[in-house]
Amino acid sequence: MIKVGIVGGTGYTGVELLRILVNHPEAQLHVITSRSEAGVPVADMYPNLRGHTDICFSVPDTNTLGECDVVFFATPHGVAHSLAEEILATGTRVIDLSADFRIQDADEWEKWYGQPHGARGLLPEAVYGLPELKRDDIRNARLIAVPGCYPTSVQLGLMPLLENNLLPEQTIIADCKSGVSGAGRGAKVGSLLCETSESMMAYAVKGHRHLPEIKQGLGWMAGKPVGLTFVPHLTPMIRGIHSTMYAFAPDLPADFDLQGLYEQRYANEPFVDVMPAGSHPATRSVKGSNMCRIAVHRHVETGQIVVLSVIDNLVKGASGQAVQNMNLMFGLDELTGLNHVALMP
Amino acid sequence: MIKVGIVGGTGYTGVELLRILVNHPEAQLHVITSRSEAGVPVADMYPNLRGHTDICFSVPDTNTLGECDVVFFATPHGVAHSLAEEILATGTRVIDLSADFRIQDADEWEKWYGQPHGARGLLPEAVYGLPELKRDDIRNARLIAVPGCYPTSVQLGLMPLLENNLLPEQTIIADCKSGVSGAGRGAKVGSLLCETSESMMAYAVKGHRHLPEIKQGLGWMAGKPVGLTFVPHLTPMIRGIHSTMYAFAPDLPADFDLQGLYEQRYANEPFVDVMPAGSHPATRSVKGSNMCRIAVHRHVETGQIVVLSVIDNLVKGASGQAVQNMNLMFGLDELTGLNHVALMP
Amino acid sequence: MIKVGIVGGTGYTGVELLRILVNHPEAQLHVITSRSEAGVPVADMYPNLRGHTDICFSVPDTNTLGECDVVFFATPHGVAHSLAEEILATGTRVIDLSADFRIQDADEWEKWYGQPHGARGLLPEAVYGLPELKRDDIRNARLIAVPGCYPTSVQLGLMPLLENNLLPEQTIIADCKSGVSGAGRGAKVGSLLCETSESMMAYAVKGHRHLPEIKQGLGWMAGKPVGLTFVPHLTPMIRGIHSTMYAFAPDLPADFDLQGLYEQRYANEPFVDVMPAGSHPATRSVKGSNMCRIAVHRHVETGQIVVLSVIDNLVKGASGQAVQNMNLMFGLDELTGLNHVALMP
Amino acid sequence: MIKVGIVGGTGYTGVELLRILVNHPEAQLHVITSRSEAGVPVADMYPNLRGHTDICFSVPDTNTLGECDVVFFATPHGVAHSLAEEILATGTRVIDLSADFRIQDADEWEKWYGQPHGARGLLPEAVYGLPELKRDDIRNARLIAVPGCYPTSVQLGLMPLLENNLLPEQTIIADCKSGVSGAGRGAKVGSLLCETSESMMAYAVKGHRHLPEIKQGLGWMAGKPVGLTFVPHLTPMIRGIHSTMYAFAPDLPADFDLQGLYEQRYANEPFVDVMPAGSHPATRSVKGSNMCRIAVHRHVETGQIVVLSVIDNLVKGASGQAVQNMNLMFGLDELTGLNHVALMP
Repeated sequence: MIKVGIVGGTGYTGVELLRILVNHPEAQLHVITSRSEAGVPVADMYPNLRGHTDICFSVPDTNTLGECDVVFFATPHGVAHSLAEEILATGTRVIDLSADFRIQDADEWEKWYGQPHGARGLLPEAVYGLPELKRDDIRNARLIAVPGCYPTSVQLGLMPLLENNLLPEQTIIADCKSGVSGAGRGAKVGSLLCETSESMMAYAVKGHRHLPEIKQGLGWMAGKPVGLTFVPHLTPMIRGIHSTMYAFAPDLPADFDLQGLYEQRYANEPFVDVMPAGSHPATRSVKGSNMCRIAVHRHVETGQIVVLSVIDNLVKGASGQAVQNMNLMFGLDELTGLNHVALMP
Repeated sequence: MIKVGIVGGTGYTGVELLRILVNHPEAQLHVITSRSEAGVPVADMYPNLRGHTDICFSVPDTNTLGECDVVFFATPHGVAHSLAEEILATGTRVIDLSADFRIQDADEWEKWYGQPHGARGLLPEAVYGLPELKRDDIRNARLIAVPGCYPTSVQLGLMPLLENNLLPEQTIIADCKSGVSGAGRGAKVGSLLCETSESMMAYAVKGHRHLPEIKQGLGWMAGKPVGLTFVPHLTPMIRGIHSTMYAFAPDLPADFDLQGLYEQRYANEPFVDVMPAGSHPATRSVKGSNMCRIAVHRHVETGQIVVLSVIDNLVKGASGQAVQNMNLMFGLDELTGLNHVALMP
Repeated sequence: MIKVGIVGGTGYTGVELLRILVNHPEAQLHVITSRSEAGVPVADMYPNLRGHTDICFSVPDTNTLGECDVVFFATPHGVAHSLAEEILATGTRVIDLSADFRIQDADEWEKWYGQPHGARGLLPEAVYGLPELKRDDIRNARLIAVPGCYPTSVQLGLMPLLENNLLPEQTIIADCKSGVSGAGRGAKVGSLLCETSESMMAYAVKGHRHLPEIKQGLGWMAGKPVGLTFVPHLTPMIRGIHSTMYAFAPDLPADFDLQGLYEQRYANEPFVDVMPAGSHPATRSVKGSNMCRIAVHRHVETGQIVVLSVIDNLVKGASGQAVQNMNLMFGLDELTGLNHVALMP
Repeated sequence: MIKVGIVGGTGYTGVELLRILVNHPEAQLHVITSRSEAGVPVADMYPNLRGHTDICFSVPDTNTLGECDVVFFATPHGVAHSLAEEILATGTRVIDLSADFRIQDADEWEKWYGQPHGARGLLPEAVYGLPELKRDDIRNARLIAVPGCYPTSVQLGLMPLLENNLLPEQTIIADCKSGVSGAGRGAKVGSLLCETSESMMAYAVKGHRHLPEIKQGLGWMAGKPVGLTFVPHLTPMIRGIHSTMYAFAPDLPADFDLQGLYEQRYANEPFVDVMPAGSHPATRSVKGSNMCRIAVHRHVETGQIVVLSVIDNLVKGASGQAVQNMNLMFGLDELTGLNHVALMP
């Protein structure tokens, strides 16, 4: 059994980690920390866990965390910077769900996050935890940066095109739609039901923190810098990300077999499902599951490639992918504890 | 492995049965029938099942169904009446999710369903599949009538009071609120998003088909007929039933330990969770799970007993309870394949 | 033109007042105050008002408010207590949407609101602004207490029964369902979309601040104290209240003409619509309008009277009713500026 | 008073027309037809209209329709083809909300709608009813084709760019998100709450009937054919369209004043609101109103122009725009009866 710790489990990625881990056959929850909720049973805060775990929040403590085989950080950015080194020093591995280690270029990180990078020394060994791109590195990693939700859906949607160098023009567009849980459990007016339901809006058109992360990943795939216009939208639902990507490939023959390219690329991926040609995946088809479903189209008049990619932002976009990383790091079948069928309807 | 058949799996209780059964460690899906969809993979209709099962719908056929250990009926009322006998004759057990065998009084059934009862001969052996009330009978049954969604939540909410004969006045009220999935997957104007979201309404105040079923169950508990005013409401959400029950017990001492009564009654029930005193369970705390969560209050001024009972109408109110019955019938741990944590948020 | 001031217009009742008043043919918006937003155009906070008004929030100031014919308070409780007297002294009338003057018994008010009553001296002249009950008093009032949202729907639903002394047993139950806007625009975790959508829950079963207000009104109608069990529920929608009321009247003949009683009582009420016998009004039928729609049923088995009453909590339950009061106070047709058709779908 | 007839008022654009017209000071509803609902009061079908109109549906009849000054068609496509000529012959003007006269090229229409064009002879005088583009023609028209919902939001969003010939590359993308009411009131599984809420999906990527209509309009603005990739998405809300448009203009100076261009173009338009620079309009800011709100951005890295355009699909995208056309045709102030403030929250 893998002994698991969670730092900062009071948010949505925290409770989602718990939902997955309490039924994971090879994981045992050892400690979950929250300074503000110390002593409170997690099931008091999240009654869906009643009957599944008796664990209480406790004050963060390196000794207890150091007893774990792996510690997940489900914290705001900056926290893992300050704690990861200490925990790694005890021999415990770290899977960070925050943005702290996602961007390899510390200066770029500081520009977008507006504060000093607190752990530059760890960046060389931090592995970007997108299994479809970095599976072998993940297996041997001590420190994982779990990708963001938008970056996961966009990178998986564009990977086959970029890896095969099919996009000569740097005019990729990612028009992304996210459920409100992506904004977290903070008490913000902008996340109230009365402000977000029955409405749709774009935000952060001038620049969103996931932009440099996505561009970093696309660059790895293409072997060169890739331009991207990324516009996120707030969508009136709890969970789900739908990324619609547009790529202009004027030199690609009209009969190029995009469907085959995608099916072949993801043939052995347990959590990427290439839908049949002509499909339109709905986010509800992955609600509560770790699956990413993708469809690829080509516009008959303009020749634009249109890719549709859906995930559950809290699962494949956060906690599920974190556990997928854990499975890889500890030599388990990647599917272990992650075979949830999406809740539909 | 239990060989399982499903008759009529195209509705919401059908896909929910599939969601549960494809991950059930002791069940193997042998056949699923739908005349209209014969030949179509179920995963084409319900993409959440892609990667979990390759089974296709097939035309109903007694031979194939007779190869199963158990057949679930997820059909409109009347269908099980006409098919159950034939299937039972092959030695296969039947778990009927429809209303066909829920009411023991066939004349009463005919009055509410407006058509002749098609299988009066089977009623004596039909067992009402509410494990908390009929566990021993279920273990030995060949034919199970899975309770309706409203009846499950109301009966579990009132059981401790009625079994202990605490309600002298016949003025019980059940004010129930259901998500729209209770209306099924039929293409009806009344179930459109634009007709049901952002709105709340009562319906069937003059009489709902679940009324006689609930009164039958309450009568069993009380050992005598019980009056009930039952008003269902359509609530703008997909899943969930919240039943608020009011019972007038003027002779009950103000300090009577209702909390203890409920906790004791359900101490050994794996799927009934008595919440701490003063709680207000939300339907989302059971979304996707087979749990029923209950809180019991007493109004400080009027002395009214107020019981709050929540379930997921598609799980404990239908397909989950059906599988719970199957587990009992085949000697499995009642929890097998049913330990889902509710999806929250 | 009536010169109008608004104190505290940043919440939902504030913006709803503005929505109504900017198109009111006899009202002219003179000042709207908010200490925190002083200088900000209201249309910056509420873009639906762009093009309808250029007014900016300003710091509260008695001189400016005193220039108005009437000042609306759309503030948390306690604010009107401290400011009303000063404003009234300038000859300006006051319509208070908060709870400050709703309860005539100041001790009772203090018990439920947990703070000293700040304006006992004004209570004798404060008029409870339910036009269907107090129309003549309203016409001559200087100070109006606009009823709460739940109290409006419950009182209108029970008025014909109580005024005619038809309910001998004190076992009235009001099971009320409210949209989330009833909780206001405050940044609370409990009002987040991810906490409230796709879920239904009761709250405050032990006692809600609207209970004494409702009982006061029912008592006025009945001419004696009336017992009430009141249970509010949080419903996953923005606007709307659905009150389901149960009253036991065992001595009332089964053929008593309840429908006629209600139709006659409300025959001349512009904002109460008695639906045809057998109806089930939906909250969406009043969304954005000042109408209260009511249906009255009698349960065929138990004889319970079941009343269904729906309003838009922000209109008839707050800002619309406030303007209805203003119309009465200034001798206008009661419908002036309030003839909105509900938005449907 | 303008005497108004409506053909086919049972759908969502029909009831929305009624909502607007019953409060329109210069319009008088003379007749509304529906073969299936003849004799039924419209307020029985749409209870929001109770108290606002007593009119009943009647069988379509040219004599009665011919008594009107103007007849609105709120019908499926094909109906106006067969009836418009007859009505026009009586001297009555026609405003068609269907697609029948939107596309000037009848062959193109037949290709997309899969049936013969039934009124080619009327096309030369049919005016495309987008006031911002065709105001003068509308004033003198006998026959108006009201634009589709997506086309309205996209054309208004791109008009300033195309009229000024700023887009050299034909790679315009319109990623559009629509509420479910755009699918109409038909009883379709795909429009059920349980199929559409809590989910987001693209549809018709291969080609949507609004594509040729949009391209026709963009071509008029540019004076030459314009390529467009148009992807509509089904969004879990009742009303609203959010169009996000991407246009590549590599030769446009980085400091080009797009904000000024838009503000100037729409300075005198009563129903187009150019938001301040940096804004993100939400669809709820126009819910129930005839306004289109637009923001224009330029991506700092890629130089892509990003335009955000929101409307209420049932108002500016259908019935409100239809009434705006009527106002123009009859010499009224364009705002008459259309000054609704959006319902927010």
